Amino acid sequence: MKKIAVIGGGIAGLEVSRLLLQEGLPVTLIEKGSRLGGNLRNYAHLFPDFTPSDEILGNYRFLPSNSDLQLLMNTQIESIDFSTQPYTLHSKDGIAIPADPLIIATGYQVFDAKLKEEFGYGIYDGVITSVELEKMIKQHHIVTPYGKIPRRIAFIHCVGSRDAKVGNSYCSRLCCITAIKQAIETKKLLPETEIFCFYIDLRMYGLTFEELYLNAQKEYNIQFVRGRLSETSEMIDKRLIIKAEDTLIGRPLQMKADMLVLMVGMEASDFSKQFAYHNGLEIGDHGFFQPLNQFNARSKSQKEGIFFAGTSIGPMSVAETIEHARAAALSAISYLKDKEY
Amino acid sequence: MKKIAVIGGGIAGLEVSRLLLQEGLPVTLIEKGSRLGGNLRNYAHLFPDFTPSDEILGNYRFLPSNSDLQLLMNTQIESIDFSTQPYTLHSKDGIAIPADPLIIATGYQVFDAKLKEEFGYGIYDGVITSVELEKMIKQHHIVTPYGKIPRRIAFIHCVGSRDAKVGNSYCSRLCCITAIKQAIETKKLLPETEIFCFYIDLRMYGLTFEELYLNAQKEYNIQFVRGRLSETSEMIDKRLIIKAEDTLIGRPLQMKADMLVLMVGMEASDFSKQFAYHNGLEIGDHGFFQPLNQFNARSKSQKEGIFFAGTSIGPMSVAETIEHARAAALSAISYLKDKEY
Repeated sequence: MKKIAVIGGGIAGLEVSRLLLQEGLPVTLIEKGSRLGGNLRNYAHLFPDFTPSDEILGNYRFLPSNSDLQLLMNTQIESIDFSTQPYTLHSKDGIAIPADPLIIATGYQVFDAKLKEEFGYGIYDGVITSVELEKMIKQHHIVTPYGKIPRRIAFIHCVGSRDAKVGNSYCSRLCCITAIKQAIETKKLLPETEIFCFYIDLRMYGLTFEELYLNAQKEYNIQFVRGRLSETSEMIDKRLIIKAEDTLIGRPLQMKADMLVLMVGMEASDFSKQFAYHNGLEIGDHGFFQPLNQFNARSKSQKEGIFFAGTSIGPMSVAETIEHARAAALSAISYLKDKEY
Repeated sequence: MKKIAVIGGGIAGLEVSRLLLQEGLPVTLIEKGSRLGGNLRNYAHLFPDFTPSDEILGNYRFLPSNSDLQLLMNTQIESIDFSTQPYTLHSKDGIAIPADPLIIATGYQVFDAKLKEEFGYGIYDGVITSVELEKMIKQHHIVTPYGKIPRRIAFIHCVGSRDAKVGNSYCSRLCCITAIKQAIETKKLLPETEIFCFYIDLRMYGLTFEELYLNAQKEYNIQFVRGRLSETSEMIDKRLIIKAEDTLIGRPLQMKADMLVLMVGMEASDFSKQFAYHNGLEIGDHGFFQPLNQFNARSKSQKEGIFFAGTSIGPMSVAETIEHARAAALSAISYLKDKEY
């Protein structure tokens, strides 16, 4: 008897579990934290149409009450024993869980903005990350650490992305559109506030993204500056001074702002990198799990019975994550039925 | 008894059919043309790793011999009769086909470059489209219409994309990376040829795209100019003169070239727009079919038993198309089983 295990209780793991349970297949879902929903829980609203993330998460609300679902919370898996059949997962606290097939849905972590020291995160209080701004948006209350309404905010794109210096040469694919979403939401809450977005290239590749970008300019008067930030400093009154090069006019630029929002990119989690390493699973150049191929086997691993779902293989949007999770569920079902999907 | 019909024999329709047949479900696959494979057949190789497209198409080679597949070639569907149960598809030449569920996988068409008259396509022989260049790459033989080796080639990004003047304000998402793929392949075939790419933003959002872009610069000496082309003209010796603004230095630019490659974007096909209109299916602002929602129901339509697969809902890469087709197959299977997927 095969024993299906899913590692990770974000939307990828939840969607995989939902589909397998639907098929009448019992699932063991393992989550390292104390809540389900993963990174999506950090979002108030989703681009491009400002759907509340709770609406998406709500689809999985009834999952834990399914009697075919064995849910292990606060359980961190450290190793897989491939010598057994089914394989055995070992948790940090000594639990052994049979797993065959195993679906890895361990997701991503956001880039640690402190590593870009020159941007001043962790040094100047007015410098926050996009994750922190999203929380303020959720609470409808955007203030500086001094309790003041920021009159000028600069959004800095590509923090920890497209940056060989911090080891992430790839694009995180979603920060550009998230910056625009957050800038619009900020402007709705603080109509008097000036907003500037500093970008390298604007990657509005989704069918409806370009409109949001044009709308940000026309309806919300958000300013876009093509240039990478070089340095942040703080004045005596706690306002920030940022230096950049405006690459469209080819000139250095200096600007004061009350708040800086660093659009932190998506990274492979330290956990999954170590997990892959210790368990002989392949990881790609950027630390994400490496699928069997990138055209028609993005949910398969090199190992029999091990599958990937969601951002464990690289940055993805919510829609892409859900579709990739569906493909992973199909792969697992076909493996169980010994069919070729 | 439900009768599954799939319209469109490109990779989306083929992948949907493959999965349904795998499930033991008989499928009627309807293709308007005389060959299967759709737009993918126009590609020699795929980004980012230059996999031959024939490798992907090869996965479907044995499909037509499956005795559960009823294949209708050269058959163009004009209307759906929703008054019957199952629905009835009517072809142009009078065939009636039961369909419930129906999966629409009618794909995309490339932008007609003649509509950008100022770029000179259809006027000057040295101006070709990316589809035409891809054919030359497939034949390992890139020449001007005069049989000469082009010494300088300019690739023009965003032809028919991000262009409100031609009614396509959206980004086609794949032209940037395709331009880089084609530029590298051209340089491999013609190492002495100078290559310039004219772009607005470089949308290298995929995990491995940025590397290809850097590699194009470092290994292949391909030059990137940020600027939109304004005009093409031809000299007496048949060389082309192009005018653009270099938006990074803020200056107008004029350049001679032997060949211009227009990176034509992806559009909803005229057929699918008319088909949607005549059959009361919803289409979005850009003419593509409008899914039920863009987070977890991108394969569902507003109509019971009608599903979408692949680029019929918007531009997608090969990997995205295959995963979206898998999600559509799952939706159709769940509909047949009366389960919620």
